[in-house]
Amino acid sequence: MKKQAPVVLGVDMGGTTIAAGAVTESGEVLLEERVPTYRDGPGHAVQCLMALIETVRDAAERNGHPITGIGAGVPGPVDMTAGRITEHVPHVPELTGRPLAAELHERFGLPVYVDNDVNALALGEWRWGAGRGARSLIVLATGTGIGAGIVLDGRLVRGASGFGGELGHTPVKFDGPRCFCGGRGCLALYASGRGIAEAAQARVAGHAETALLRAAGGDPLAIAAPLVFRLAAEGDPIAAAVVEEACQAMGAMIGTIVNGLNPDVVVITGGVAAALAPLETRVLKAAGEYAFPRALATTRVTMVPGDKRTTMRGAAALVHYEMARAEEDSR
Amino acid sequence: MKKQAPVVLGVDMGGTTIAAGAVTESGEVLLEERVPTYRDGPGHAVQCLMALIETVRDAAERNGHPITGIGAGVPGPVDMTAGRITEHVPHVPELTGRPLAAELHERFGLPVYVDNDVNALALGEWRWGAGRGARSLIVLATGTGIGAGIVLDGRLVRGASGFGGELGHTPVKFDGPRCFCGGRGCLALYASGRGIAEAAQARVAGHAETALLRAAGGDPLAIAAPLVFRLAAEGDPIAAAVVEEACQAMGAMIGTIVNGLNPDVVVITGGVAAALAPLETRVLKAAGEYAFPRALATTRVTMVPGDKRTTMRGAAALVHYEMARAEEDSR
Repeated sequence: MKKQAPVVLGVDMGGTTIAAGAVTESGEVLLEERVPTYRDGPGHAVQCLMALIETVRDAAERNGHPITGIGAGVPGPVDMTAGRITEHVPHVPELTGRPLAAELHERFGLPVYVDNDVNALALGEWRWGAGRGARSLIVLATGTGIGAGIVLDGRLVRGASGFGGELGHTPVKFDGPRCFCGGRGCLALYASGRGIAEAAQARVAGHAETALLRAAGGDPLAIAAPLVFRLAAEGDPIAAAVVEEACQAMGAMIGTIVNGLNPDVVVITGGVAAALAPLETRVLKAAGEYAFPRALATTRVTMVPGDKRTTMRGAAALVHYEMARAEEDSR
Repeated sequence: MKKQAPVVLGVDMGGTTIAAGAVTESGEVLLEERVPTYRDGPGHAVQCLMALIETVRDAAERNGHPITGIGAGVPGPVDMTAGRITEHVPHVPELTGRPLAAELHERFGLPVYVDNDVNALALGEWRWGAGRGARSLIVLATGTGIGAGIVLDGRLVRGASGFGGELGHTPVKFDGPRCFCGGRGCLALYASGRGIAEAAQARVAGHAETALLRAAGGDPLAIAAPLVFRLAAEGDPIAAAVVEEACQAMGAMIGTIVNGLNPDVVVITGGVAAALAPLETRVLKAAGEYAFPRALATTRVTMVPGDKRTTMRGAAALVHYEMARAEEDSR
């Protein structure tokens, strides 16, 4: 059989789905597979992950693609020095404290790199996406929660113990309310899917009857972020106020990033970013209230919707990044 | 004459005083000179600077010290690529837009590096001070204003156009009031010397007679930060509320730094830091309201008073840093 292009196996380990794909050096996904994280029940997610990687590996090998390594993005901070997932991982509890990279290496005999999913995503955007060619790039990924990946001067900022990039849980309002993370006035309170839903729920609580509550079938807890965005677009004042606050808080965070780190590129991606995309002008106007005009002029801020392969490709980019770093260090 | 230790000339170009010293490789200041920035009148600060460097250079050479280079810290963002001071420099307006490094190089024929004074200060703390041995370090310098220097993974974060580290003008309250920088809800509004003074002035305005106003001789505009700290320590409730807010806002910024960048060390220095030093426990308690406990546990936060040589030594450290980088790049 003719020798094919080498590939990296990129894995996106999410709380709902595990996805794995064979990704070429130019970022093309040649083949991919998905399984529900809890197909085999709670406590068996890593087992599903192993089986999925095996399937993709076998398919890639059958097609003649040499496999250079495995990269995995997981939903929690990772201490790369100790090779462990450091924090409690609410979406996949069995990952907590686990040396996943070592386990995968032992099973597959390939170089394995495991990192926080948003760090991986940022490396993917930097290598193949909206941040291509930039020296410095910050990706804000906004979904149910908000994470960030920070690349400065060509290096991923992981921090002393893997917390680098937890911008979703940095305060945008120091006298703000408690956040579900235990912090206070965090960006995620205002601009994450969960924060937007809870803010809307709290606001309807004070009203007898509102369009938002009607649209949720009368159950405040059924108000989710997509509904809030839809009602805001339809002119509902309560939903509009919540979305307005989300835009303003997101603008403040962009201001913090631009004045504090002044990167070449800021990418805002994820589900809430897709909902915010029609409001891009509004968010950038808010950013202009906080950022120095000349700093903002040199930082390109862009909203990209992302898709279900973004983290998978990012996990593949992680392998290229780590291999390049290792080569650099050995020189 | 016996050959002496090589030195770097470190220059601190401030709005009141210009200081220059001959600094050894271990950070010792062998000799130093100071002149008032406007000794020869407005528009002649660079002339004073040149004369001062000449004096120190001649003295160092007379004592047999070879001079490896000149480093200067200036009070404004510097675009290192273009070699210019990019922004309007209110304290030394004639520096605005000026290619100072090229001018000094032409005059003295030595390698010259010019950077923002707080970036220089951070490099000094990293090389010889509280951040020695750290991979990542953030210095918050709090005086009349607040600046920051950010070293991550061994590299100074200058940003796309020299704004990296302007943490004093990042929002800690996204719905806060306008800042004197043109931004909104900035840290400097709450925790800089100017911000503390103006907050206290605004608070006394609503009261007929207060201890703070009496201590300022009845003139609200005579209320300055040191007075606010003194009155707060004496139990004056208005001053105490202003200081309380300063501590809380500073704690929020530490939380942002710890969760967002998770560096090994955060150094808080400068005049306001000296006033805050007795309140270190209070500031760290505030930081704990925002930072993840495990991230805060791996980032050492320390308040160091600093002295009038801190920036001068930092400017010397800048030369060592740049020369090491140039060597690294040429390999």
